[in-house]
Amino acid sequence: MLQVVIIGSGNVAQHLIKAFANNANAKLVQAFARHPQDLEHLLPATAITSSYDTITEADIYIIAVKDDAIAHISSQLPFTGRLVVHTSGSSGLDQLDNKNRRGVFYPLQTFSKNKEIDFSVVPLCLEIEKEMDYQTLEDLAKGLSESIYNIDSEQRKALHVAAVFVNNFTNHMYAIGGEICSQNNIPFDILGPLIQETADKINTLTPKEAQTGPAIRHDGQTIQKHLDFLEKENHKELYTLITQSIQQTNE
Amino acid sequence: MLQVVIIGSGNVAQHLIKAFANNANAKLVQAFARHPQDLEHLLPATAITSSYDTITEADIYIIAVKDDAIAHISSQLPFTGRLVVHTSGSSGLDQLDNKNRRGVFYPLQTFSKNKEIDFSVVPLCLEIEKEMDYQTLEDLAKGLSESIYNIDSEQRKALHVAAVFVNNFTNHMYAIGGEICSQNNIPFDILGPLIQETADKINTLTPKEAQTGPAIRHDGQTIQKHLDFLEKENHKELYTLITQSIQQTNE
Repeated sequence: MLQVVIIGSGNVAQHLIKAFANNANAKLVQAFARHPQDLEHLLPATAITSSYDTITEADIYIIAVKDDAIAHISSQLPFTGRLVVHTSGSSGLDQLDNKNRRGVFYPLQTFSKNKEIDFSVVPLCLEIEKEMDYQTLEDLAKGLSESIYNIDSEQRKALHVAAVFVNNFTNHMYAIGGEICSQNNIPFDILGPLIQETADKINTLTPKEAQTGPAIRHDGQTIQKHLDFLEKENHKELYTLITQSIQQTNE
Repeated sequence: MLQVVIIGSGNVAQHLIKAFANNANAKLVQAFARHPQDLEHLLPATAITSSYDTITEADIYIIAVKDDAIAHISSQLPFTGRLVVHTSGSSGLDQLDNKNRRGVFYPLQTFSKNKEIDFSVVPLCLEIEKEMDYQTLEDLAKGLSESIYNIDSEQRKALHVAAVFVNNFTNHMYAIGGEICSQNNIPFDILGPLIQETADKINTLTPKEAQTGPAIRHDGQTIQKHLDFLEKENHKELYTLITQSIQQTNE
């Protein structure tokens, strides 16, 4: 069994801690958190530390903290030559202090506090500095998920941008849809099946094949009606720009 | 049993024809199509006509054609005083010729040729000119779906714009994500669980609660990294505008 220490107490750290409860290959031996009380609903107090001096020995240390804290925390670790990985999509391997063996363990998923995640289908993107450590990291990953990818720093950078589009920006499309509904006394729930089907289609069609609507039909009359309808300047601009982008993609 | 005639042979018409096979309240007695062969895989040739002269008598006529053909086709119908509805999200009731009793039967869903739809969860948005016809239209709808809404023309206009955001524009976010993946030799499949989870979250959180990522965190450093990474001018503009819109929504 691999011994694991998780450093951090945010969404990613908490979802990872929960996922490790059922890991056949690895055992969570300790969590490090500046505010131990953030994790007390998940772990016994004896398994949580807030002091670098008492960090226990382990095979892998997973730093799951804000991007801009990775460098500092990795430099504070009171040991060298051990395997230390971060979980960030947008940080290079070089954010980690090179006194330890470095790697990345990036779960490509959106984590919210009040929403459970089935970790077994979360794509885990692995990168490692020293070839000899790949097997260890993969063993750890295999205990958590069936979906494992070897992704280098350049690819991970691309993936993080792609993830912003399909997750954050998509969610903002839902937010605008919801705003339009609420302004017109329509329950947001009415959009639920459409949102679900839009996501489901991607399992059998490419986004290009799945595209429908006034933009791809070049239905200028409907596009104009929609622009006249929208009140917020920012929504009009978004509508215009995305419509143009759909039309360019399909030229 | 209500007798129904469907006019049209496109995606919506074909999905409706399939859905009527299991309708407990209504029976499809005929389909009208300019090119009967478009429907021959769904109906016996005797149930399809391409001539106005042979349109059969029915309780409801459903015009499921392109928006700009609704007015013409409804004016060509060789009868008066019957109940005629269209299925368009972006057309008013007044697109229908007033020689018949008018209504709207708008299924709020995205229909593609090669993707089956579970009609029982499709929200059906009903509007009727004469109060006396509402019950008939609702009976028809109840045989198809469990999700029925009384939506007037103004609300339907809003709903259609909202649907463009949560469906067409969301799908375009998937397309851009896919493009970025393919340029970096990453399989698009890796984004599948994230796309699915983004849609699932909406069942338990509002889009505002569900939002994560660099925009809402005002993480200027990551935003700049992403803008530097994007190559297409149009993608940079989209990234900037959507980021601003997320930040405005959450001010």
